[in-house]
Amino acid sequence: MSFEQLKHECWQTNMSLPELGLVFFTFGNVSCADREQGVFAIKPSGVEYEKLTPEDMVIVDIATGRTVSGTLRPSSDTNTHLELYRRYPEIGGIVHTHSTYASAWAQAAKPVPVLGTTHADHLPVEVPCTEFMPDDRIQNDYETETGLQIIDCFTRLHLKPMENPMVLVAGHGPFTWGKDGAQAVYHAKVLEELCEIAYLTLQINPAAVPLKKSLINKHYCRKHGKDAYYGQL
Amino acid sequence: MSFEQLKHECWQTNMSLPELGLVFFTFGNVSCADREQGVFAIKPSGVEYEKLTPEDMVIVDIATGRTVSGTLRPSSDTNTHLELYRRYPEIGGIVHTHSTYASAWAQAAKPVPVLGTTHADHLPVEVPCTEFMPDDRIQNDYETETGLQIIDCFTRLHLKPMENPMVLVAGHGPFTWGKDGAQAVYHAKVLEELCEIAYLTLQINPAAVPLKKSLINKHYCRKHGKDAYYGQL
Amino acid sequence: MSFEQLKHECWQTNMSLPELGLVFFTFGNVSCADREQGVFAIKPSGVEYEKLTPEDMVIVDIATGRTVSGTLRPSSDTNTHLELYRRYPEIGGIVHTHSTYASAWAQAAKPVPVLGTTHADHLPVEVPCTEFMPDDRIQNDYETETGLQIIDCFTRLHLKPMENPMVLVAGHGPFTWGKDGAQAVYHAKVLEELCEIAYLTLQINPAAVPLKKSLINKHYCRKHGKDAYYGQL
Amino acid sequence: MSFEQLKHECWQTNMSLPELGLVFFTFGNVSCADREQGVFAIKPSGVEYEKLTPEDMVIVDIATGRTVSGTLRPSSDTNTHLELYRRYPEIGGIVHTHSTYASAWAQAAKPVPVLGTTHADHLPVEVPCTEFMPDDRIQNDYETETGLQIIDCFTRLHLKPMENPMVLVAGHGPFTWGKDGAQAVYHAKVLEELCEIAYLTLQINPAAVPLKKSLINKHYCRKHGKDAYYGQL
Repeated sequence: MSFEQLKHECWQTNMSLPELGLVFFTFGNVSCADREQGVFAIKPSGVEYEKLTPEDMVIVDIATGRTVSGTLRPSSDTNTHLELYRRYPEIGGIVHTHSTYASAWAQAAKPVPVLGTTHADHLPVEVPCTEFMPDDRIQNDYETETGLQIIDCFTRLHLKPMENPMVLVAGHGPFTWGKDGAQAVYHAKVLEELCEIAYLTLQINPAAVPLKKSLINKHYCRKHGKDAYYGQL
Repeated sequence: MSFEQLKHECWQTNMSLPELGLVFFTFGNVSCADREQGVFAIKPSGVEYEKLTPEDMVIVDIATGRTVSGTLRPSSDTNTHLELYRRYPEIGGIVHTHSTYASAWAQAAKPVPVLGTTHADHLPVEVPCTEFMPDDRIQNDYETETGLQIIDCFTRLHLKPMENPMVLVAGHGPFTWGKDGAQAVYHAKVLEELCEIAYLTLQINPAAVPLKKSLINKHYCRKHGKDAYYGQL
Repeated sequence: MSFEQLKHECWQTNMSLPELGLVFFTFGNVSCADREQGVFAIKPSGVEYEKLTPEDMVIVDIATGRTVSGTLRPSSDTNTHLELYRRYPEIGGIVHTHSTYASAWAQAAKPVPVLGTTHADHLPVEVPCTEFMPDDRIQNDYETETGLQIIDCFTRLHLKPMENPMVLVAGHGPFTWGKDGAQAVYHAKVLEELCEIAYLTLQINPAAVPLKKSLINKHYCRKHGKDAYYGQL
Repeated sequence: MSFEQLKHECWQTNMSLPELGLVFFTFGNVSCADREQGVFAIKPSGVEYEKLTPEDMVIVDIATGRTVSGTLRPSSDTNTHLELYRRYPEIGGIVHTHSTYASAWAQAAKPVPVLGTTHADHLPVEVPCTEFMPDDRIQNDYETETGLQIIDCFTRLHLKPMENPMVLVAGHGPFTWGKDGAQAVYHAKVLEELCEIAYLTLQINPAAVPLKKSLINKHYCRKHGKDAYYGQL
């Protein structure tokens, strides 16, 4: 894929965030990787969505972290994306938003329990929430540390990134990912909806319990298992 | 009605779900029956609404459960629709969504009480919620079992499907139906609204009580009773 | 004003309800009076907003309650409007909706306290909520009784209809009114907003107290008092 | 800048309030200052947004408080704007709304705690809430007193207006400001979002704690500190 094509894809997926009601002003960013070339395109820092053009996208080298194309500064969250791309080669796109319900769960510093099949259709475990970052890591390269913190959380909980393509960073907000930018955006929207339904569920019934494992597995596997029968062949 | 006409009606009613804010992406489906021919049309599995065409609809034979027209796989929930059509010949259309408030009540595993006349205008009893499915039924043909579970719930509570055209499946979400697909969609929207108002009512006043029977009957019967005087002749 | 003009005004104000997000499907109605002719125009019963035309409006004689122009049946709530027009000659338009937050407060059977200046800008007292209707009145002409119940409530609380142009009917929903249909619609939207903000206020701070009388009076009088200085001359 | 240009800028920023979902009908106003000329333009009182034209804007002299251009009466909140412009020469634009969540926090009379980085990205302290106004000040020039009350609150809490460009007036609603009208509107939208996320956070976890100072500083300074690296150069 040419850099021009990659920038166009990245611009398009970025533009879908405000359309889906997940961001306004400059609150969020999408990156799209081209693994063959070892690069990803990402939104420039602090540019409003309505003024964004494909040419504004910045291409960053995964190995070196350096900008290899583009005249603007990349998103201030670039180093978080970088760490995730480095650690998880299966990831092809990453999204960060401050979407309302997902940010509220992140600020509440609570993982989102699997309260229903809408959740289990997408991931078989609760949406994890990282620890709050200790001071020494905040003083460090903060955005790199945010990526490492997500990785620590996944390692500690034995989570696989493509089975569980979303996380809440405590006190901050959600990151989601997927095989490409479009799938990462899909997961960002799904997460926001899961967070809203989970919130309402616990307001209606504070004693609501997580789905039992058999039902979670049924729903997760009919979409993602080896004998999946959801969708088209 | 020709299969082409039936597919077009089914496509149109499916398209009304995102317009009414009841689904996004692929989260939901409508089927429309042609009882004379003993078939129903249904959305294909996992196809996004914005890409859906009338030709994509799949026609399924009610007696055999086999696809009789269409090249795509029918919705993964087809067997749930099938069981309801088989058991209740008066049903002409069925809707399944993951709409936000109805899904929250389903995840809370609580029936929606008749807290006001907006509810009583549409059904004279609380919106029922099924039991959670036992493991042996989950291992079985899950979607068929979902339909049977709804039927069990209606039998147990002595409910008539055309008087009470909606149900919550515990831990999952809502199913609604009607004399045709359009009416089933109407009920899906009404249910979502009833669920939101009921949620808010109990937040404002946790001691709010259901309407008394005389007021429920008055409202239900002015729209649906033998001397109904709501609407046009 | 000709009946044609009155029907057009009534159609236009009815159409503003779905635009303002206050109704969907057939959930609500507006009437507009012409006091010189002693009539009001009202939405026909059970007709969806998107199919409504000015010609569909029905004109009702206030003295006799009879339809004097129009071929459709008037709203099933017509007798409620009729009672209010008969009792309060200063009213020129009435709105009934099932808007979400106002219906929730009505179902909660709680008056909406004056928690802020947004409320006091429009009315100097809490939004009243009627009693639940006793069975003998339900068995009677229900819609007439609904109007009488609102009047009873206003008499009991010594409220003036043009100072307090909104009410919640317990277990049912809101009625609002004004000098004409447009002002009644304005009050329906304001009420919905007051109900949402009041709900949120009490969720954030269950101990929130009503505004003190001096601040209520200041805000109410700067818009509605004899020395009002809000708006243009 | 000519008065015509200033009126146009003020009209444009006023029009962005309903587009951002922050006001409907006449509920809010924006003013834009021209410090060189010692004046500000402001929305006229009680005119609906959809009828507003650039020519309707009113220009007020900051020193005298008198209208120097325009035929309509300025916003009834003009004296509040005036006090803020007089006290804080760094302010170039002011917004007042009754946006839903910010008004609810104001009615709850609670400052909005710094529960997450979305907040810390914009201001390093909680959003302050004034005291309720004592009766003698209400009887005075109420709108001037509202401005003075905001100033008192900032003085008491040692807040800098450009570091903390937003305030809740107890029982009333939000005021925000910035270097110009557009930035004041930006802050009005941000405040509404912060208020919604903070509300949800405390519903999900009533024991949620404010971010620690080190994380607040990190986020605030990466956007606003002397070594800020957010956005473009």
